[in-house]
Amino acid sequence: MHNLVLVEGGVCLSSGFFASGVHGGLKKDNALDVAFIYSDELCEVASVFTTNKMAAAPIRHFRAMGDFKSNFVLINSKNANAMTGTKGLEDIKEVLSHLPKEATNPIMSSTGVIGVRLPKDKIIEATKLFDLTKKDSKSASKAIMTTDSFAKEISFRVELSDGSHFNIGAIAKGAGMIDPAMATMLCFITTDAKATKDELQEILDEVVKTTFNAISVDGDTSTNDTVLVLANGKSGNFDRDAFKEALFKVMHFLALEMVRDGEGATKLVTYKVSGAKNDKEAEIVAKALSDSLLVKTALFGEDPNWGRIASTVGASGAEAYEDRLKISFDNHCVYDKGEVFFDSEMERKCAIVMQHKKFTISCDLGIGDGSFKAYGCDLGHEYVKINADYRT
Amino acid sequence: MHNLVLVEGGVCLSSGFFASGVHGGLKKDNALDVAFIYSDELCEVASVFTTNKMAAAPIRHFRAMGDFKSNFVLINSKNANAMTGTKGLEDIKEVLSHLPKEATNPIMSSTGVIGVRLPKDKIIEATKLFDLTKKDSKSASKAIMTTDSFAKEISFRVELSDGSHFNIGAIAKGAGMIDPAMATMLCFITTDAKATKDELQEILDEVVKTTFNAISVDGDTSTNDTVLVLANGKSGNFDRDAFKEALFKVMHFLALEMVRDGEGATKLVTYKVSGAKNDKEAEIVAKALSDSLLVKTALFGEDPNWGRIASTVGASGAEAYEDRLKISFDNHCVYDKGEVFFDSEMERKCAIVMQHKKFTISCDLGIGDGSFKAYGCDLGHEYVKINADYRT
Repeated sequence: MHNLVLVEGGVCLSSGFFASGVHGGLKKDNALDVAFIYSDELCEVASVFTTNKMAAAPIRHFRAMGDFKSNFVLINSKNANAMTGTKGLEDIKEVLSHLPKEATNPIMSSTGVIGVRLPKDKIIEATKLFDLTKKDSKSASKAIMTTDSFAKEISFRVELSDGSHFNIGAIAKGAGMIDPAMATMLCFITTDAKATKDELQEILDEVVKTTFNAISVDGDTSTNDTVLVLANGKSGNFDRDAFKEALFKVMHFLALEMVRDGEGATKLVTYKVSGAKNDKEAEIVAKALSDSLLVKTALFGEDPNWGRIASTVGASGAEAYEDRLKISFDNHCVYDKGEVFFDSEMERKCAIVMQHKKFTISCDLGIGDGSFKAYGCDLGHEYVKINADYRT
Repeated sequence: MHNLVLVEGGVCLSSGFFASGVHGGLKKDNALDVAFIYSDELCEVASVFTTNKMAAAPIRHFRAMGDFKSNFVLINSKNANAMTGTKGLEDIKEVLSHLPKEATNPIMSSTGVIGVRLPKDKIIEATKLFDLTKKDSKSASKAIMTTDSFAKEISFRVELSDGSHFNIGAIAKGAGMIDPAMATMLCFITTDAKATKDELQEILDEVVKTTFNAISVDGDTSTNDTVLVLANGKSGNFDRDAFKEALFKVMHFLALEMVRDGEGATKLVTYKVSGAKNDKEAEIVAKALSDSLLVKTALFGEDPNWGRIASTVGASGAEAYEDRLKISFDNHCVYDKGEVFFDSEMERKCAIVMQHKKFTISCDLGIGDGSFKAYGCDLGHEYVKINADYRT
């Protein structure tokens, strides 16, 4: 049996990894806005990107690189380098050509405003401040923030049954535009586990389904969504099950941190759908619930308006019947197969559940054994405020 | 050539139609909450209902009636009679059994809170106040309101080329939960045109696609959405083209009135999509734009954030390319096939466009000749306020 131990270190926990954030003048007030992650050994790289047809220049640049090992990721916030066409690609090439000579096949990643050329001179200046011997994951996690209200980082030492171990750690950003089909989110995961590229990619593809692809803040899918896993193999150790569990814990934690930090969000809600015709239909219902504006605003108002839950299930397109459905707020069942248990006492109980920072809304469709869990937040005045004035 | 003349009268303009709203105690402060529409001749009835799997009891009741002619519609607001199972159907039967003896095959329609039994005694009492000789469309239009901030009514006299004419008029409610696949909206259309049921249904099915199914307030689809057309034939006249045009004008006007009255909305935006692979893909893009929270909040902030438009086009699932797309705010083109025309002067111009109550955002995908127009509104603080506390 393996053992996961939560330890400090973020993307610098694994041996051979270095990272730091600097101020390049993209953000105001000396805030950090350009970061690097560097490994002193070349890494296998696994990736998942946005499905948006307007994928940003850094993603198009990565895809054009083909099969490669890398030891360097350059990240900037404040500018997404999206909708910038071939000039966006040229800007990346120019910026990357100024990186320290240690950088091999460097990867670029950007997040921020769409449709504005990369401030490449500022970023090039910033890269001159990089100290590749720094292990400062915290400052890197701050430099990649946009509307995030807190930095997101986690790391584990994974102890295997034979006494050996490897490490895994990550930083991420994401607070809005989070959609079940990825998000304006960036996540960089580093590990010294010794895995092949195929193993990494296969495990990442599995884990992303129930983590980053199960969360929703506002149902919008960005041009820049990126998850990268870099594995330098320096621990010499690997165990598939242990690695998959650790990767899940890392990505699950960061996904929920993004929802918790959803723009204007005050609550983290788990939508647990069961009894669907199949898993796919359960997913459709769970995501419809986590995306529904009427459900989100009812959550914000702490109003146990179960009728909106039922209506959203019905509107989702999945097979559903009024006389088979069951709806609960945490362990309080308000509706079961045509019977309404929503008297004033129950309403009071459910309203108390909804005052919590975290709770679960369960829908059993009573048809088959399909199930899925999605994670969402409420939508309040702050969301409107943040997004009405984003660029200014 | 026919001629459409806008005249007063609403659902009572057509000969033989009567309507009125009364107070039945469902709403507070003597507000109107129960209405009837009555025709002194039996009517052909055409209908479109919600696609929500949790269709409310009145819709299930209508569907169970099979093929029939009717002369009576009973409508209540404040209670949707949805998620009420077989008891919801029994309540309808009991209420309808107390209607005036003139009512033949009466239809019931409800809107309001989901999951609460119909206050049938109050509604039965209210029906005793009905005066079937009243032609008071205005009061009926008020009685069907829920979160609407104004009543919605329109009517036309349709003058045919041979000197004959018929009339058409309607009342509607709807302000939130409006989705491209129908809405929490009710619309009752009366006409003295002499059409068969098949003609009515065929024309209604065509017209609904580009009117009620092209509008969005919040992307949610309700349990109660209903459009009914009642034709008593008393004018003795009919012309297919004239009728279709008149029905389109009636439904288009009311659809835009619903968007204009969208909960918390301050702007009515037309999304004009062209150059898509086909009309279906154009519709997907137009509806993605009108549903996007990020676009809606940018509208509210009067921020010409064209990057969010591009990103939403890319995320819609329709075929789209960065180097073929063109985006305009009214007649100001901000992005054309990779070229950005968004300097500070253009930003100022677009910001002025966005200060208007009505404007158009156009996206030409540059691929084929598919096109579609959708209509949406912005999302502001009022939407959150209204929907966080709806039931209370």
